Amino acid sequence: MGVVLSLGDGKRAPASIARLVDLTKADMARVNELILSKAGSDVEMIPEVANHLISSGGKRLRPMVTLAAAQMFGYAGEKHVKLAASVEFMHTATLLHDDVVDESGMRRGKRTARMIWGNQASVLVGDFLLGQAFRMMVEVGSLDALDTLSAAATIIAEGEVMQLGVAKNLETTEDDYLQVIKAKTAALFSAAAEVGPIIADAAKADRAALRSYGTNLGLAFQLIDDALDYGGNTQSLGKNVGDDFREGKVTLPVILSYRRGTAEERDFWKRAIEQNESGDAELERALGLMNRYGAIGDTIGRARHFGEIARDALAPLKGSPQKSALLEVIDFCIERAN
Amino acid sequence: MGVVLSLGDGKRAPASIARLVDLTKADMARVNELILSKAGSDVEMIPEVANHLISSGGKRLRPMVTLAAAQMFGYAGEKHVKLAASVEFMHTATLLHDDVVDESGMRRGKRTARMIWGNQASVLVGDFLLGQAFRMMVEVGSLDALDTLSAAATIIAEGEVMQLGVAKNLETTEDDYLQVIKAKTAALFSAAAEVGPIIADAAKADRAALRSYGTNLGLAFQLIDDALDYGGNTQSLGKNVGDDFREGKVTLPVILSYRRGTAEERDFWKRAIEQNESGDAELERALGLMNRYGAIGDTIGRARHFGEIARDALAPLKGSPQKSALLEVIDFCIERAN
Repeated sequence: MGVVLSLGDGKRAPASIARLVDLTKADMARVNELILSKAGSDVEMIPEVANHLISSGGKRLRPMVTLAAAQMFGYAGEKHVKLAASVEFMHTATLLHDDVVDESGMRRGKRTARMIWGNQASVLVGDFLLGQAFRMMVEVGSLDALDTLSAAATIIAEGEVMQLGVAKNLETTEDDYLQVIKAKTAALFSAAAEVGPIIADAAKADRAALRSYGTNLGLAFQLIDDALDYGGNTQSLGKNVGDDFREGKVTLPVILSYRRGTAEERDFWKRAIEQNESGDAELERALGLMNRYGAIGDTIGRARHFGEIARDALAPLKGSPQKSALLEVIDFCIERAN
Repeated sequence: MGVVLSLGDGKRAPASIARLVDLTKADMARVNELILSKAGSDVEMIPEVANHLISSGGKRLRPMVTLAAAQMFGYAGEKHVKLAASVEFMHTATLLHDDVVDESGMRRGKRTARMIWGNQASVLVGDFLLGQAFRMMVEVGSLDALDTLSAAATIIAEGEVMQLGVAKNLETTEDDYLQVIKAKTAALFSAAAEVGPIIADAAKADRAALRSYGTNLGLAFQLIDDALDYGGNTQSLGKNVGDDFREGKVTLPVILSYRRGTAEERDFWKRAIEQNESGDAELERALGLMNRYGAIGDTIGRARHFGEIARDALAPLKGSPQKSALLEVIDFCIERAN
């Protein structure tokens, strides 16, 4: 696909999460320790299944956001470590359940847990991790943080159910789709960012700023993921180009191509998405149509729009290494599509 | 099977939950309202799936136990209503996930949600209800109650995973099996009972008493359920005799029959449970063997043992209508096997 983003100023080095990684390194070591210990159980299969996914090389972006957001407001205690681990467990539980719901075979370049241990284990170990996430939050003892994260858990599930309705439905509008990803992806980013100022006892406006940052970062992140599924490169993605297409997922690149296409092209999309005529030849045609209508480029453009909102959300906050790192995460997310 | 229990004194009327229902009637009306409202969502499919199970005529024993346990210690607020609804949601979420894990077709005489809306919806609506359960607990604001219920959520999931290991494994000992049902069934009864004294700010010994009552009531309840699966009557159960057998579940009646049987009989059990040779003829033979070895009667005997422990757990507490009602629940659970 070869979509290339202009970097705006044309001079800047590629954005990376190196700064965020650096700032949160010491805390993340404790988070990772906690993750390993809380994924443990006398029931052998639980750590096996959990660690398969936990050790599969996710970036752990969400817990790092929690840590940086707490540091940013001068938080000096230990609660952010537990909350960050909770956030990652919520995410892991969602992935385990997602793979069952989507009948996925691969994730992060590895066979999914459901392919190795079955759907049953994936559902139940997901439940276990969600339970452990709540226990850690309870240990932290902040009812505000509990409220924020438990609301996110509900919203994520709502988003996933909405997605079932959207699946294979080409009449899904861009608005419908945004509502889905706001719930299923952005809600956790939002909560992950907001619990930082919450435990740091920051002002209401600071909480709102981080919440907005998280929401919009999450939207951008998901849209770029959707674009990458049609344009990324197999190695770095750990999944094949066109996975969403083969699964009949209606994501923004498909929505834009469908709405901008001719009647004949819309028929093609219907056969592909609704009737599973989605082999290699069809994928090639789909990529051609996306290219013709600029659907990937515009998906990235939409992502950039939400990235701007995330950036402005943090604008009033005073400068700090954490603020710079969180801003760079936005660019990193969007530049992944290069 | 026609197992008839001696009622001990030979004069007592059959135990019922009428007294418990009566004592908790006003509170339960509010619990039921809350359940309906918190199962609501703008995402249409969620209340549809949730209400299918919620309205399917479960006894709501667990939330009634929570309410009575709170009343018993003079609790006069409103928190017990939310906690009772949380407990029922945790239970409902577990059932939705269980039916997916067990690939069950029927529950309470109705087709399971997964047969109507699919496994995907069952997994995700279960997640939603679990999220809502936590949100209600957070609203209550008692960290002690949150701790107790979130620990239960983890333990239940552990129990379900343990059960995967036990499934189709005839070398499961009675001890192994008790460990499974202690986690998957008794943990929620235990938490449901304990949160009553917790929000009533009762003494530590009272919390321990109710916790022990709940654990042992739960064990008795599950063992009777297991016995009923081989001896109950189809109408009142809402499921067919031998469902566990056909699903290859290793429950106590099977464990006892297997261990007490001859080598030839053990081969029969292996073919039936491990290799799915479990048609009508095999079920008939299984029932015959259970009868020969008294496996159903002894399963009920084991249940009675735990019932006694539950009874003694409440013994030191001063008399009250709630105490009487909770004691009668024990007898009701066990007498279901008549």
